[in-house]
Amino acid sequence: MKAINIGLIGLGTVGTGVVRLLTAEKELLARRLGTHLVLKKAADLDPARLAAAALAPDQVTSRAEDILDDPEIDIVVELIGGCGAAKDYVLSAIDRGKHVVTANKALLAHHGNDLLAAAAAKGVEIAFEASVCGGIPIILALRQGLAANRIQELFGILNGTANYILTQMTQSGASYGQALAEAQAHGYAEADPTLDVEGIDTAHKLAILMSLSYGARLDLDSIAVEGISRLDPLDLQFAGEFGYCMKLLAITRDDGHRVEARVHPTLVPRDHMLANVSGAMNAVYLTGNAVGPILLYGQGAGMMPTASAVVSDLMDLARNLICAVPGRVPALGWESALNTHRLIKPINDLVTNYYLRFSALDRPGVLSQVSGILGKHNISIAAVIQKGREAAGTVPIVMITHEAREADARAAMAEIDRLPIVSPPTVFYRIEDPHLHAAQI
Amino acid sequence: MKAINIGLIGLGTVGTGVVRLLTAEKELLARRLGTHLVLKKAADLDPARLAAAALAPDQVTSRAEDILDDPEIDIVVELIGGCGAAKDYVLSAIDRGKHVVTANKALLAHHGNDLLAAAAAKGVEIAFEASVCGGIPIILALRQGLAANRIQELFGILNGTANYILTQMTQSGASYGQALAEAQAHGYAEADPTLDVEGIDTAHKLAILMSLSYGARLDLDSIAVEGISRLDPLDLQFAGEFGYCMKLLAITRDDGHRVEARVHPTLVPRDHMLANVSGAMNAVYLTGNAVGPILLYGQGAGMMPTASAVVSDLMDLARNLICAVPGRVPALGWESALNTHRLIKPINDLVTNYYLRFSALDRPGVLSQVSGILGKHNISIAAVIQKGREAAGTVPIVMITHEAREADARAAMAEIDRLPIVSPPTVFYRIEDPHLHAAQI
Repeated sequence: MKAINIGLIGLGTVGTGVVRLLTAEKELLARRLGTHLVLKKAADLDPARLAAAALAPDQVTSRAEDILDDPEIDIVVELIGGCGAAKDYVLSAIDRGKHVVTANKALLAHHGNDLLAAAAAKGVEIAFEASVCGGIPIILALRQGLAANRIQELFGILNGTANYILTQMTQSGASYGQALAEAQAHGYAEADPTLDVEGIDTAHKLAILMSLSYGARLDLDSIAVEGISRLDPLDLQFAGEFGYCMKLLAITRDDGHRVEARVHPTLVPRDHMLANVSGAMNAVYLTGNAVGPILLYGQGAGMMPTASAVVSDLMDLARNLICAVPGRVPALGWESALNTHRLIKPINDLVTNYYLRFSALDRPGVLSQVSGILGKHNISIAAVIQKGREAAGTVPIVMITHEAREADARAAMAEIDRLPIVSPPTVFYRIEDPHLHAAQI
Repeated sequence: MKAINIGLIGLGTVGTGVVRLLTAEKELLARRLGTHLVLKKAADLDPARLAAAALAPDQVTSRAEDILDDPEIDIVVELIGGCGAAKDYVLSAIDRGKHVVTANKALLAHHGNDLLAAAAAKGVEIAFEASVCGGIPIILALRQGLAANRIQELFGILNGTANYILTQMTQSGASYGQALAEAQAHGYAEADPTLDVEGIDTAHKLAILMSLSYGARLDLDSIAVEGISRLDPLDLQFAGEFGYCMKLLAITRDDGHRVEARVHPTLVPRDHMLANVSGAMNAVYLTGNAVGPILLYGQGAGMMPTASAVVSDLMDLARNLICAVPGRVPALGWESALNTHRLIKPINDLVTNYYLRFSALDRPGVLSQVSGILGKHNISIAAVIQKGREAAGTVPIVMITHEAREADARAAMAEIDRLPIVSPPTVFYRIEDPHLHAAQI
């Protein structure tokens, strides 16, 4: 059987891992596939990386074109990241009739619809298991394993950096700045952590998971995004007193008509499976109408976990090449996903439980005024903690609400923040708590 | 595109779920597949089940042969269970060139090698996602998603009945008999629970997962199996004092030469992800050499979760039928699995940590005699709990050992049980604790 020739663009961390797997596990992969995956050429602009790759001289090049123009290369692996050259290379590979494997979630979230349409027109495939949750086979699960299900809701801890910082803040009481510095010292956070801590990377991944779940076009712009960089350890402590922990969650939920699409710090009950996802680990917790709740958990990033996903994609594309059935499964798992739109529920229409923390002067009647305004806006209170006076002269009043509409919560907070006895801004977080929900029904 | 015709044998719980999915989600499945999955005929011996299935008169039959002999039926779904008629029907379907989907772990564990060989010879496929962990896509993950990995170890909570009983015993202090009665009252356990509580069903599933992990023949007979029916709540309580909880685990581990294959009640640390798998839920926690640790969690049984897995298999086989590429992926994920044997490590060669509970007379020197015998057999003690005298005159001495060889542990216990001051038999359980392991290195 003909060997499958692979060209790899980008010899960074993940690229190096892919070279290692293709080299060290060559025979194992052939035992599975029945033929060899051959790394014909790897490209990188950095000579030091090329030298470090332990490949033969004719296997390395500084020019991506040497891969794109090689008619013997069947599959191009794009691992340079970003939406610049990566996009050009992917389009160029498609144009030359090559299949593509990528780990590039930003590229897919921003340009996935165009790239997938171009690939479909050309009869080639784009595989992207490595773009979400590293080696966890979540794309495979949504695209094939759970194909009999309507995905009713999905919660994801999709960014290891943010989860590491939140875990540190929760376990040690560290400030955001301290936890970030520690994450950077351990190599879990980059010098500029914006993409990770502001929820942007998580939103890229949520856009991909939503397309797979609903069989619809990628729609990054409609995802409401808040990060973790303004978190106060005080709120993690109060959350703990109510039995919650804080996670940066990607959330989508289908009410049959519209779908929620949001990324923000979220309180989850400490006995929820997601509460035990600590440090740099990732997880997706979803509910399918037939299968019920499912959790997939593992390392969401790193050299070898991500390389594991890239190589599983290579195996899948190789099998399609061997059988001459490109596009056996549609890229997003649905025949017409790129022609399907889902209506997004604006964040103001969201109905959920809220955690509210007011800073109020410790005067008689404060609780009555605050709760009066909440009541006027149809928000009822499920639990309250009010503690004694602090040095600063204000006391925190912390509340968990019953289910309320986001627009009402925001209007109520704006009104409360205008009270002379309240020191704005009021802090609020959303809660995902099945128990709380059930208690109201 | 030609519709895919399906014949279903067995309208029990899972069969009824499959009919529901194929009927209620007909259009959703077609949106994914590009053609329709058509339930041409369903067979059951029980007229009441046929009547309850809400199918047209020409869709139901009491004769499985009406399905097997129908040349228009592409895929046969076997859902009657057991190794009798089910085996005949599967062989007969293969012989007539039909593909097969089955949820029958007993059939696969006992006759899988022959059935898979027969299918391969005939150029048809047997798909069996539903045979392990209900709707959790663990077969898909091992067969494809983690294809770049050597599976180094795998722990499974694969039987919801046993896990429900253990959860009840742990949470309420109930006896085994009480917890079993409760499980039966809630429909989680059958009138004869032997297969579930004695670890037999778990062993069937472990045999399947081992074949997929290692690319080797199914080898049920070499799995060491112990059940939970003799568990004393006292040991769950002591386990808790050491920070452990008890789970019926399927365990396999590859040392590169031999593989462990065992099913038994196991102490796992309370902070392990598997410790949080409660009630009737299932989970598989595995480590791949590239991907690292992975957990998959969900409902391991029940009508709709299992039907979800059956229908995902139907989709996969249907795609292969549409593309005319039967056997695109080998049944076990490896080209030559049926010709490959793995050497099994006999349980006596196992090296692990043990929980030991001795019942001893409360006399001076007891601990010294017991620990002396353990030391003589190369077993050193990591932790001890010895409590005050009980009414019966004996006191429990509970120990956690450092890593020891099973043969040594058994020889030491036999010698200890002959001491006049010890009331046999000594109770022992195996521990899986990465912390304890790391502490010794």
